[in-house]
Amino acid sequence: MDLKQYESRTSRPIQAKVPDFQRHERLKHVLFSQQFNTGLLNHLARVATNIRALAKSRDGHIWLSQLLPHKRAMLYFTQASTRTFLSFTAACQILGITCNEIRDPKVSSEYKGENPLDSVRMFSSYFDLIIMRSVIANFAECCAYLMNDLERSDQRSVPIISGGAGTDQHPTQALLDMYTILRTFEFTSPQDSSLRTRFAELQSRYPSLTKGPADKTYCFCGDIGRGRTVRSLSVLLSLYENVTMIFVAPDHDKLRLSGDLKQFLISRKVKVIETEDLREVIGEADCLYMTRIQHEHDKPEDKTFFDELDMSRYTLTPEMVGRMRDYTPIMHPFPRNEEIPFEIDKDPRAMYFRQARNGMWIRAALIAYLFDMDGRIMSKHAEMFSDYQSYNEGVLA
Amino acid sequence: MDLKQYESRTSRPIQAKVPDFQRHERLKHVLFSQQFNTGLLNHLARVATNIRALAKSRDGHIWLSQLLPHKRAMLYFTQASTRTFLSFTAACQILGITCNEIRDPKVSSEYKGENPLDSVRMFSSYFDLIIMRSVIANFAECCAYLMNDLERSDQRSVPIISGGAGTDQHPTQALLDMYTILRTFEFTSPQDSSLRTRFAELQSRYPSLTKGPADKTYCFCGDIGRGRTVRSLSVLLSLYENVTMIFVAPDHDKLRLSGDLKQFLISRKVKVIETEDLREVIGEADCLYMTRIQHEHDKPEDKTFFDELDMSRYTLTPEMVGRMRDYTPIMHPFPRNEEIPFEIDKDPRAMYFRQARNGMWIRAALIAYLFDMDGRIMSKHAEMFSDYQSYNEGVLA
Amino acid sequence: MDLKQYESRTSRPIQAKVPDFQRHERLKHVLFSQQFNTGLLNHLARVATNIRALAKSRDGHIWLSQLLPHKRAMLYFTQASTRTFLSFTAACQILGITCNEIRDPKVSSEYKGENPLDSVRMFSSYFDLIIMRSVIANFAECCAYLMNDLERSDQRSVPIISGGAGTDQHPTQALLDMYTILRTFEFTSPQDSSLRTRFAELQSRYPSLTKGPADKTYCFCGDIGRGRTVRSLSVLLSLYENVTMIFVAPDHDKLRLSGDLKQFLISRKVKVIETEDLREVIGEADCLYMTRIQHEHDKPEDKTFFDELDMSRYTLTPEMVGRMRDYTPIMHPFPRNEEIPFEIDKDPRAMYFRQARNGMWIRAALIAYLFDMDGRIMSKHAEMFSDYQSYNEGVLA
Repeated sequence: MDLKQYESRTSRPIQAKVPDFQRHERLKHVLFSQQFNTGLLNHLARVATNIRALAKSRDGHIWLSQLLPHKRAMLYFTQASTRTFLSFTAACQILGITCNEIRDPKVSSEYKGENPLDSVRMFSSYFDLIIMRSVIANFAECCAYLMNDLERSDQRSVPIISGGAGTDQHPTQALLDMYTILRTFEFTSPQDSSLRTRFAELQSRYPSLTKGPADKTYCFCGDIGRGRTVRSLSVLLSLYENVTMIFVAPDHDKLRLSGDLKQFLISRKVKVIETEDLREVIGEADCLYMTRIQHEHDKPEDKTFFDELDMSRYTLTPEMVGRMRDYTPIMHPFPRNEEIPFEIDKDPRAMYFRQARNGMWIRAALIAYLFDMDGRIMSKHAEMFSDYQSYNEGVLA
Repeated sequence: MDLKQYESRTSRPIQAKVPDFQRHERLKHVLFSQQFNTGLLNHLARVATNIRALAKSRDGHIWLSQLLPHKRAMLYFTQASTRTFLSFTAACQILGITCNEIRDPKVSSEYKGENPLDSVRMFSSYFDLIIMRSVIANFAECCAYLMNDLERSDQRSVPIISGGAGTDQHPTQALLDMYTILRTFEFTSPQDSSLRTRFAELQSRYPSLTKGPADKTYCFCGDIGRGRTVRSLSVLLSLYENVTMIFVAPDHDKLRLSGDLKQFLISRKVKVIETEDLREVIGEADCLYMTRIQHEHDKPEDKTFFDELDMSRYTLTPEMVGRMRDYTPIMHPFPRNEEIPFEIDKDPRAMYFRQARNGMWIRAALIAYLFDMDGRIMSKHAEMFSDYQSYNEGVLA
Repeated sequence: MDLKQYESRTSRPIQAKVPDFQRHERLKHVLFSQQFNTGLLNHLARVATNIRALAKSRDGHIWLSQLLPHKRAMLYFTQASTRTFLSFTAACQILGITCNEIRDPKVSSEYKGENPLDSVRMFSSYFDLIIMRSVIANFAECCAYLMNDLERSDQRSVPIISGGAGTDQHPTQALLDMYTILRTFEFTSPQDSSLRTRFAELQSRYPSLTKGPADKTYCFCGDIGRGRTVRSLSVLLSLYENVTMIFVAPDHDKLRLSGDLKQFLISRKVKVIETEDLREVIGEADCLYMTRIQHEHDKPEDKTFFDELDMSRYTLTPEMVGRMRDYTPIMHPFPRNEEIPFEIDKDPRAMYFRQARNGMWIRAALIAYLFDMDGRIMSKHAEMFSDYQSYNEGVLA
């Protein structure tokens, strides 16, 4: 392995790296949630929502599947992750991209001692996009540098998307969480009419309610310290104005909010609150983000701590759901343990399965965008739904 | 795992469950061979034969592959079964459906302790059809209930097809066996003309011969007690009139015809005969269904029994094939052991490889039917072959 | 396993077998590099180059993907080989062929003790092409005989392509190496004009240089004895006139040029030179073919030999590259070890990654040819590029 050649680049602060993964004003590779700003988040969310609308009809779905039939993706997932893997696969297939996979590193040339960079360069010979999740720290980032170097010497180069791995960021998880929040805080409903909207109804009950992610209280509960998803999402949410974040975690070094993230959020004017019992704050949340305690990372010396831990403080119950606001989405990156019991699945605020499906749409939007197909999708959507829109505009006028 | 919530439903007798897996007059999920009646069997066989005819030409094949390109299937096969898996895959691909698979449970989130029902609900977020074979008893059935409950609360729900597993039924194996029998007992031949047909020839030798599965003697040989395929197929065959079944099995509790199945068949007016030597009955069979002895289920205490067992009683030889009727198909669900030697493969009555290919066509028909595409296929077939048909009708008129 | 039935056929000399794998003047199965003559090599290279040109535009790429959408391939790779596997997969996908795979033999029916010939015949029921790499010696060849026998008795039969395995030949590796050599020795450049060409420039420096594989010195370095690729490629190169081959290998029975290959090459009028140090001959090579020492085949008694081996004799350095001819391609079948350091990757003569991509194009050409689509591709190419060609012809006239 010769990843050392990239050390001077991987060791830079993230903000210094971001330009390396862009071409002109667009993303070229996707590695860090810091690559997304509110403008891009809104754009991708709109593309995702357009794809979703197009996919509802057979014709629209088939039109989408003819966008990129000439592209082939490699999903190189040597760290297992069924959920992320399937979501990316479905996203590619929606756009007509053919998927190939390596999930079992044992099936690979690596057995003959091949350098992983050689493997990735081989993939880039056969495929047009590499989506990867590796156990090697910074590996996706190094591959992006390899591709940049190849491009510079006029050789074949393809986009790299990180599927999140080990201690690396998981940027598309943050993206799907943000998409779910953006959609939820539109406060629209299929029943909305010019006379009566869901948002107006909610406002009559919650007068200070506004649309969009700004001016909201986000409650994160569970394994705050060890869960990457909380970290990435809170960083993205800090892009919005007047945001409060409540972190509910056991009082343990590894589990509570880390000092550096706290510092960062405060520097971005986020109001940060920490507590140890979800029951105390459940009524305040505009958005509830549950996570499971990642016991696979427990140290032997912490056994007593976890044995004595009162899990009811980090577990949702129907009673607690009853005290939540009418619009507050219950999110969870999944898989779940007991922190969300099955009986809550039927509550209309339970968003975690729709969140997974959102992940498929926003990943399709991201991939379409990387191949410059976002414009076509927006035009097609406008064309297919123009009658409906003019009708609506007529009614609203 | 919280499959207990479905216990009151899974413990009902099969006939009480059947309506749960239908919508209006159609199948919604496919779990039990009892869901098929003779009308549906004939319909699916006709659709399968139409698909087969369409697929013979490049144009027809491409037309088929454009029927469902907007659908994605998940093949969730945590119990290994190459044959069934590949057959379903090919069936989906014929219709343009994109296939995704999970075959190695180790690659899955279940490692993080995920509830399998959460996994299946996740699959239903990304895919439009779930075909499954799990080691967990009744799991496919429970998933069908989960989907029904979701549909009832206006949430996303997709069809479930059981690929057969452990002690569960294997309904599409029964379907492909029936399709093979329906096709064989049409007694048609490519050489048939208005002057001379294969059926007329056969009738001159076998005056009582009639078309169709009724009025026939079916001979099942080998591991009658432990083979699910014999069970499911005999149940379907009992739907037809005047059927005789000969069961040839070693005289052992686990291997011979079980009491409950015997009772059931007799209650359906099937004439049941039991014997221990295939050689005695080979000449009587209109259809011979061979199976292998499933030694993987042997108990240690049965070692002596199996060591002393005269396998020649359950093994086909060219001499025996010579004594069979001219039209009797030799079927086998495969894989085979020594019960059908290689040299018999060339006999025109050896049906086992064509049986496998029939499985692909009938599964394609079933899936097309689940997505309401059977009507389109029948119309397209009529359109493509109308000239030929009118020609034939002209000749016959 | 009953491969013995094929023993009388597999034990024949290769030249006696070649006709068995042809139909009329065309290949039916692909098993040995001896099946290719210079005419066929040129034809396949031209088809590959046409496919490559068509694939450069979105329209051409989509046209290609609509050539064989009604065909399904089975990649049966029970011996691991990521590189070959992915290359074949990509080749199929370029032509619109749907790929299916079995890579883990544990997932297969073989666990129930199924005869591998039954497995392959099952695959041939579901799929239209079988590409295989098995640990069983001669297995692909036996499968080709099985298919031939089936065809003879009017049963379903599909083409077999060997993906190389164990001690068997790896014919498509030889094909991609030859394609790389054919392309390189065209000596064309995108900058070529009617006034100035790369070939003319090279000739001014190397007056005796000619186009094409004839009249060249090929240098093979590394594990000559145990590497199948060297063997197959040297056999194909011996089809050309006035060829010199330099074999650079450690002085060890297993590693140096085998007696029988040497004899064969000399009988084909190849000038054979053997040496133990690449540094001595690096300046003479028109083409350099590096390979890694396959230590996985080392015997314990050879430990001292390998410990004391001076690897610098078989390892390329920038200094040595500096002494090479300006046009000499550096090839390598990959994976590599330390015999080609990373820093050489940027040299324009480093051909090994382009070689891998060539493998994808030439395999696509081979598969298109097996399905009789080579003619269509040539016509389409002529049609799409006719304007450009007439322009060029006008300029050249």
